[in-house]
Amino acid sequence: MKLSDLGEGGLIDLIRDWTSSRPPVVVGVGDDAAVLEIGGAEDLVISTDASVENVHFRTDIQPADEIGHRAMTGALSDLAAMGATGIAAFVALHAPPDAAVEFVHDLYRGMERVASPAGVQVAGGDTVRGALALDITVVGVVPRGRAVLRSGAREGDRLYVSGALGRSEAGRRLLSGEAAPGVPARFRSAAESGHRAPRPRFDVSELLMRLPRRPTAMIDVSDGLAIDLRRLCEASGVGCSVEVERVPVDDAARCIAEGEGRDPLSLALEGGEDWELLFAIGAEGAGDLEEAARRAGLSVSAIGRILARREGMALTREDGSRRELPLAGWDHFARRS
Amino acid sequence: MKLSDLGEGGLIDLIRDWTSSRPPVVVGVGDDAAVLEIGGAEDLVISTDASVENVHFRTDIQPADEIGHRAMTGALSDLAAMGATGIAAFVALHAPPDAAVEFVHDLYRGMERVASPAGVQVAGGDTVRGALALDITVVGVVPRGRAVLRSGAREGDRLYVSGALGRSEAGRRLLSGEAAPGVPARFRSAAESGHRAPRPRFDVSELLMRLPRRPTAMIDVSDGLAIDLRRLCEASGVGCSVEVERVPVDDAARCIAEGEGRDPLSLALEGGEDWELLFAIGAEGAGDLEEAARRAGLSVSAIGRILARREGMALTREDGSRRELPLAGWDHFARRS
Repeated sequence: MKLSDLGEGGLIDLIRDWTSSRPPVVVGVGDDAAVLEIGGAEDLVISTDASVENVHFRTDIQPADEIGHRAMTGALSDLAAMGATGIAAFVALHAPPDAAVEFVHDLYRGMERVASPAGVQVAGGDTVRGALALDITVVGVVPRGRAVLRSGAREGDRLYVSGALGRSEAGRRLLSGEAAPGVPARFRSAAESGHRAPRPRFDVSELLMRLPRRPTAMIDVSDGLAIDLRRLCEASGVGCSVEVERVPVDDAARCIAEGEGRDPLSLALEGGEDWELLFAIGAEGAGDLEEAARRAGLSVSAIGRILARREGMALTREDGSRRELPLAGWDHFARRS
Repeated sequence: MKLSDLGEGGLIDLIRDWTSSRPPVVVGVGDDAAVLEIGGAEDLVISTDASVENVHFRTDIQPADEIGHRAMTGALSDLAAMGATGIAAFVALHAPPDAAVEFVHDLYRGMERVASPAGVQVAGGDTVRGALALDITVVGVVPRGRAVLRSGAREGDRLYVSGALGRSEAGRRLLSGEAAPGVPARFRSAAESGHRAPRPRFDVSELLMRLPRRPTAMIDVSDGLAIDLRRLCEASGVGCSVEVERVPVDDAARCIAEGEGRDPLSLALEGGEDWELLFAIGAEGAGDLEEAARRAGLSVSAIGRILARREGMALTREDGSRRELPLAGWDHFARRS
């Protein structure tokens, strides 16, 4: 069997079987990040994110600092999704021998632009001749036993997502020329910067970790709300219901989708790379969360609730209609859906 | 300027300038591994090692388990070289979509074969479509403040190396058909397994860390004694003198070199990938070291001493002749020397 037959999810399931998780590894292959209990007041949280030319980025249309910036955001977002604080990043740089030193410098400048404000230092790595790629391993800490996994959602929990979705995909469509013409400048600028310079949502995760009742489960929206919500529900062994009118679609994404005659919701459900946080929280904690977010000036939207597994994963409309959460999303070893 | 003009060492120097090292990063870019002081009784030691097809391995002549085995050894050896104990490894796997699942399974089996006896778990990583590569980030711990850096060697220290050198390069020459025919079977087998299934020397590093006087500086011999000794001396700001008759050349390597009419020492100086440990230790600790190694049945050889920087880095012979330590060694962005 080939990897393309198996798909990325199938491969990760196999790798989980091939590897082991016993102390001090509390969480191994399969969540946003691994959790290691090393004694002391804090657990280690570690995640690796690979970025490869012509899969994750294109050097013909993206400057090097943007490539580095986006790669570091993707890596650090996995720490935010565990409720962890970042410390350090390790970068394996694959580059052709004829790459310009200035290009590589710009990659690092882009990475530092995201890492530094998050208190994360590039503390090591490796350099090797090869097709251009950046593999970033990030290391963070979380108070012992408090990492927020994908697997803790329980029936009755409320589902929230931070920020607004679809902006990065809208920006990608604009920059690649796929979007219809006539997008107002303010939306064009917002979507492009959303795609080019996204940030990990440590502001949101820090707020969540200070709540008296923290989230029961969390994941970052890397591959689109549909696929990442599915991952959270599958890891938790639950179902869910999402009220589509409550899904926060970015204004620029809405404008760009409508210009193409597309349902704006599709950009939010399938777009990916917005790096917002999707989380479940016990119903009794919802009020505190919303109050804290309001005080902090951070946007979080209640989009639905966690159901029993047998109830499936559904999108519902105010008119009472209901459909299954789409399977669409990004798979590195299969075709783009 | 291109990376090939700069060379790998020059690039790493630049990356060190581009990045920062402030607490909790105690040691950043430039040593075998980074050291992070995270509070508590132990420091974190973290290193990344990239392995790329046709640079570090060839799928046409190496089975997948050997590729995984060698990659994991190279990564973990950096922890041994800091005196650290390994905990976990994170693997970024780049693979083409038409790669066989069995091939990938064999890669992981090879990695586990080295990781598991060292108490190291593959706890995470990433999978991505691309040219075959394995980037491994390893995480270990060392008692606080006790990581052995490259930079601590002082004038008058004794220089030691564990095991014997040149075996991996001898095996590579045999397996690639470069070696002259007529190598006795026992040497052939020893050299081939030295190349195919090397092990990180945690046995040696654990012994060293239990000594009342620990090494002042240490590095693993990844690129050959000449280049790695040069790195240790440069990081420490010292010179050195190596008595070439004392350099432990592996028996199989000696036989294979002599069959080709080469100086066996050249395999030890330039061969690389033996993953032995090269270290400096205060003269007053040398007796304890040799006694402890003898009791443990581990081979360590006194090969020379640390001098003041102004005395340079020299190879000396019993006949009193002296030459500069060769510059030869592996550079990923330059040509093979």
